[in-house]
Amino acid sequence: MRIILGIEYNGSAYYGWQAQAHACSVQQVLEQALSNIAQHPVTVLCAGRTDSGVHALEQVVHFDSSAERPLQAWHLGGNSHLPNDVRILWAQPAPAGFHARYSAIARYYRYIISNRATQSALLYQQTTWCPQPLDAEKMHQAAQALLGEHDFTSFRAQGCQSKSPRRMLYFITVYRQGDQVIMDISANAFLHHMVRNIAGVLMEIGMGKQPVTWTQFLLAAKDRKLAARTAPPQGLYLGGVYYPKQFGLVKNPVFAQLPDDAKRFDDGWANKSIGL
Amino acid sequence: MRIILGIEYNGSAYYGWQAQAHACSVQQVLEQALSNIAQHPVTVLCAGRTDSGVHALEQVVHFDSSAERPLQAWHLGGNSHLPNDVRILWAQPAPAGFHARYSAIARYYRYIISNRATQSALLYQQTTWCPQPLDAEKMHQAAQALLGEHDFTSFRAQGCQSKSPRRMLYFITVYRQGDQVIMDISANAFLHHMVRNIAGVLMEIGMGKQPVTWTQFLLAAKDRKLAARTAPPQGLYLGGVYYPKQFGLVKNPVFAQLPDDAKRFDDGWANKSIGL
Repeated sequence: MRIILGIEYNGSAYYGWQAQAHACSVQQVLEQALSNIAQHPVTVLCAGRTDSGVHALEQVVHFDSSAERPLQAWHLGGNSHLPNDVRILWAQPAPAGFHARYSAIARYYRYIISNRATQSALLYQQTTWCPQPLDAEKMHQAAQALLGEHDFTSFRAQGCQSKSPRRMLYFITVYRQGDQVIMDISANAFLHHMVRNIAGVLMEIGMGKQPVTWTQFLLAAKDRKLAARTAPPQGLYLGGVYYPKQFGLVKNPVFAQLPDDAKRFDDGWANKSIGL
Repeated sequence: MRIILGIEYNGSAYYGWQAQAHACSVQQVLEQALSNIAQHPVTVLCAGRTDSGVHALEQVVHFDSSAERPLQAWHLGGNSHLPNDVRILWAQPAPAGFHARYSAIARYYRYIISNRATQSALLYQQTTWCPQPLDAEKMHQAAQALLGEHDFTSFRAQGCQSKSPRRMLYFITVYRQGDQVIMDISANAFLHHMVRNIAGVLMEIGMGKQPVTWTQFLLAAKDRKLAARTAPPQGLYLGGVYYPKQFGLVKNPVFAQLPDDAKRFDDGWANKSIGL
């Protein structure tokens, strides 16, 4: 049987999502907890791998188990075997054909900047600190040039292994909330470091070091070296994942902004999803 | 010369505010940092000592130093010697007669409850978890009975060393913000565990285990044993401290709710403040 889980985590203590030989990952602690419940080794697959220090408000994973357990056993029982900084939010049985990564239509990320003179003592591991005043409205305006389908080469990490640099950006909203500047961004899929590279570029614009038109220029330039430095991981959260209605998962309200005909991204994944 | 500092901290890693022989306290790390800048031992005095695991949005402290340093040296230099979970927010010279504790007219505390089915992976050390749904409006209504000057014996820790159980409560507001229920409370001074004991009582009312009139009943009963358990420390924040205008400190907007004639609390402190 295939089970789907919603997972929240504070990535500060982990070497990212993916299991590593010599470092602790979120995937490892989750697989250990679920293996305890299943009484057999469990492997989880996630919608979006997060880097070291990156958090999740709602990561989505699936796993297969031959053990018959009530959903509460996976949810509450799983949590009782997890450290406090990783929580299972919900558990659901997976309808036929569901795959946490390949079935997803869109991902949503949040990037939080603590924009004040002194770094936050309370959220220094959960926000990116920027002491220079940021103009959130300018950042929002500059961000709108990224909407739609583009070649995001200028915003892509060097080691990114995706076949295509093209992605469809559905929404990007930058706003101020007290002393925080927040960026909410959704696309069909993201290139490696794409959210953090966009955040880095918008921060330069927000500080007034670059014009509002810089995003447009960088898109056209298709050159990573011309853009800003990658913004730090601690401000980044995987916010949610959107799947086709047929799978019956609760839709995060942010995805109401997506067009009705939004389709899942295919980077040569189509054949991989057969028979999963 | 006497200097005043505003301090923010995450109390999770500390055995409370006060210096301890065998455990790490916020006071100790702050005194170490300031002693480094002063090049002589520095002792700090705070407006409100916080218990183990309790945080501060804006604790106020003062200290005396014979070293002549620009304010930036205390502020930025101090921060460079502090761990990330303790930050100096600002530094100001103290006008004559200022004492962080004895000059204060009022304190404001915030108590944050994470009111959702699953404990927060992101804020488990910075919120109190309550999985049962809370009726924030009922909690707010019940809280209003505590306004004004009362004998708070029912809300006072057994070991509390204050001479009088009477305090003047200026405001108490309970409201919901997403899946958090927040209580903002201000008084001239607080008895030991008073905020957490009030939070515990209001949570029982919010869960529907006790009627809205329970606060009134407990005030009249003057019996700690009849009230609820002390709510956990991790949801509690010292939010700010209010001083007479003459000291020239920035007034936190929450204190606009205080009456113009609000006076500092005197529990036999008056003679102690002479000559300080």
